[in-house]
Amino acid sequence: MISLSEASMKTLLADLPEDLPEKKFEVLLETPSFRLERILSKGHATPEGQWYDQERNEWVLLLRGEARLEIEGRESETHLLPGDSLLLPAHCRHRVNWTPDDRITVWLALHY
Amino acid sequence: MISLSEASMKTLLADLPEDLPEKKFEVLLETPSFRLERILSKGHATPEGQWYDQERNEWVLLLRGEARLEIEGRESETHLLPGDSLLLPAHCRHRVNWTPDDRITVWLALHY
Repeated sequence: MISLSEASMKTLLADLPEDLPEKKFEVLLETPSFRLERILSKGHATPEGQWYDQERNEWVLLLRGEARLEIEGRESETHLLPGDSLLLPAHCRHRVNWTPDDRITVWLALHY
Repeated sequence: MISLSEASMKTLLADLPEDLPEKKFEVLLETPSFRLERILSKGHATPEGQWYDQERNEWVLLLRGEARLEIEGRESETHLLPGDSLLLPAHCRHRVNWTPDDRITVWLALHY
């Protein structure tokens, strides 16, 4: 977490690991009203039959890589490329169906 | 502004104008505790002798393009490239010294 004493810089596309056995969550900022995270995936998907069903709204932005998400009740998958953002209202059930397994996918997520 | 009734997608690197006479601010999300904006620059810089001095903390992420910022009291400029984030605490005086004038620079800014 970044201290608030002075201006500080962080490169979100650097220090990407070669191997990533588990999806990795890193908190960038946290206040009582929101949490900003960097998430790294490499071939990770939500386990079969599971859905995210969250108490808070989530806004995600894909920074690098690629992802296919499924939103409950929608026929077609949502395909995210770098620069694509998606607002998932609280309790909008969704799952990550696919991320590429040959490179790191970098997400920014704002939970609020 | 995005409605919260259902999941919605927005591409932050699309619909970039060819010409940009003024720096452009677009609110992506706003709550009582934060405001998330997309900012577009093309050759824009803070006018000579002026500084930003803000009541709230600002976290910025450069998504495309390039920028050089000056932070009061620091000798060297801060150079931002895509993926670079910078936390500017409230009242940390800063200015944008330069953005390229041959392409659009896209920023994400979270004021909180």
